[in-house]
Amino acid sequence: MSKPIVLYSHATGPNPWKVAIILEELKVPYTTKFINMADMKKPPFETLNPNGRVPVIEDPNTGITLWESGAIIEYLVQTYDTTATLTYTSSPERFYVSQWLHFQMSGQGPYFGQAVWFTRFHEESLPSAKKRYHDQVKRVFYVLDKALEGKQWLVGNKCTIADLSFVTWDLMLPFIFGDDTGSLELEKNYPNYFAWNKRLMERSAVKKIVKDKTEATAVHE
Amino acid sequence: MSKPIVLYSHATGPNPWKVAIILEELKVPYTTKFINMADMKKPPFETLNPNGRVPVIEDPNTGITLWESGAIIEYLVQTYDTTATLTYTSSPERFYVSQWLHFQMSGQGPYFGQAVWFTRFHEESLPSAKKRYHDQVKRVFYVLDKALEGKQWLVGNKCTIADLSFVTWDLMLPFIFGDDTGSLELEKNYPNYFAWNKRLMERSAVKKIVKDKTEATAVHE
Repeated sequence: MSKPIVLYSHATGPNPWKVAIILEELKVPYTTKFINMADMKKPPFETLNPNGRVPVIEDPNTGITLWESGAIIEYLVQTYDTTATLTYTSSPERFYVSQWLHFQMSGQGPYFGQAVWFTRFHEESLPSAKKRYHDQVKRVFYVLDKALEGKQWLVGNKCTIADLSFVTWDLMLPFIFGDDTGSLELEKNYPNYFAWNKRLMERSAVKKIVKDKTEATAVHE
Repeated sequence: MSKPIVLYSHATGPNPWKVAIILEELKVPYTTKFINMADMKKPPFETLNPNGRVPVIEDPNTGITLWESGAIIEYLVQTYDTTATLTYTSSPERFYVSQWLHFQMSGQGPYFGQAVWFTRFHEESLPSAKKRYHDQVKRVFYVLDKALEGKQWLVGNKCTIADLSFVTWDLMLPFIFGDDTGSLELEKNYPNYFAWNKRLMERSAVKKIVKDKTEATAVHE
């Protein structure tokens, strides 16, 4: 039995929960430390991660401290998923997993993040900036929907970290589109994406994290 | 001698040139096909990459077609850098390389890209959006500068794909800040970053790509 990994997290931030889903899937023991936004960009937390963001993990079993959710997920499967249940060791599949993980990191996360920013936090209302990012969110659905045509999962015939990495930003949709979320008509406009997302949401690890996140949001700043 | 890899590229886009630097470093033969922006989001190119962007590679030696610059770079070192000159096979170093590559993909590329967008291409001038991304660019310098304190390279004591992946977006600075580029006072404000960037720019692979990009910009749309 390995010692629990420490996961530095935030109640509402999607990226730490992305890591938590993988920990749950792999049944790797972990404890969560919630960090307030105000404490992220100064020591002692900034000493762990010069980028001043969560997630960060500390793994007492290997001594590593690591940040960037994409790199943490790769570390977790390479260290704890010894039978490759959530990834592939063969080529070309393992490179396709990397491709989709990088698309999630560079194409979904940042654009969904900017959509949240201009919808909820920017100092003034900028309709054309908001529209830019709402359109980018729809473009991500379009790309995923096209890639999933005739397929259950993004790579091969099993659920991998590539699929699972998209879940927690997708949970932010109501936060981005508010009352207009329904008008996206996801099932009609992006049927492959919609069915895939449903398959992901039905996994017990994902269900547990959705519940944990809701509970954490109620008690942490 | 391996058959040349086909690299789909664009004259001004930073991401294909990031891949070209690694191909040059590894002395892997390749040919470049330039794609116009207008042709990226429709077949036949969209069939290669549902995300409708460059870079994409086709490698006749393995039969793989791959997109996302971060994934392509990982593929290239794992396939062609058999003595790990530009990466590490040992832990924790290989995970730190992954961490910085993911930071480049999610933290530098997208934010520098939005800074370019709101400075050069957005339909209206939005000073507060422009300021947001100019500040984010400076924050990336701050993070790199802090991480490079007392160090020559981001991971261990050699130049890796982690370092090299930052070069081509850094070349966009004059495009983002225009006449104000000098007022960033990079050498004074981010001395570790400045010295590191200079070391990178002195590498022969980087010099060649800077020259190739300048020449391509003169003849391709």
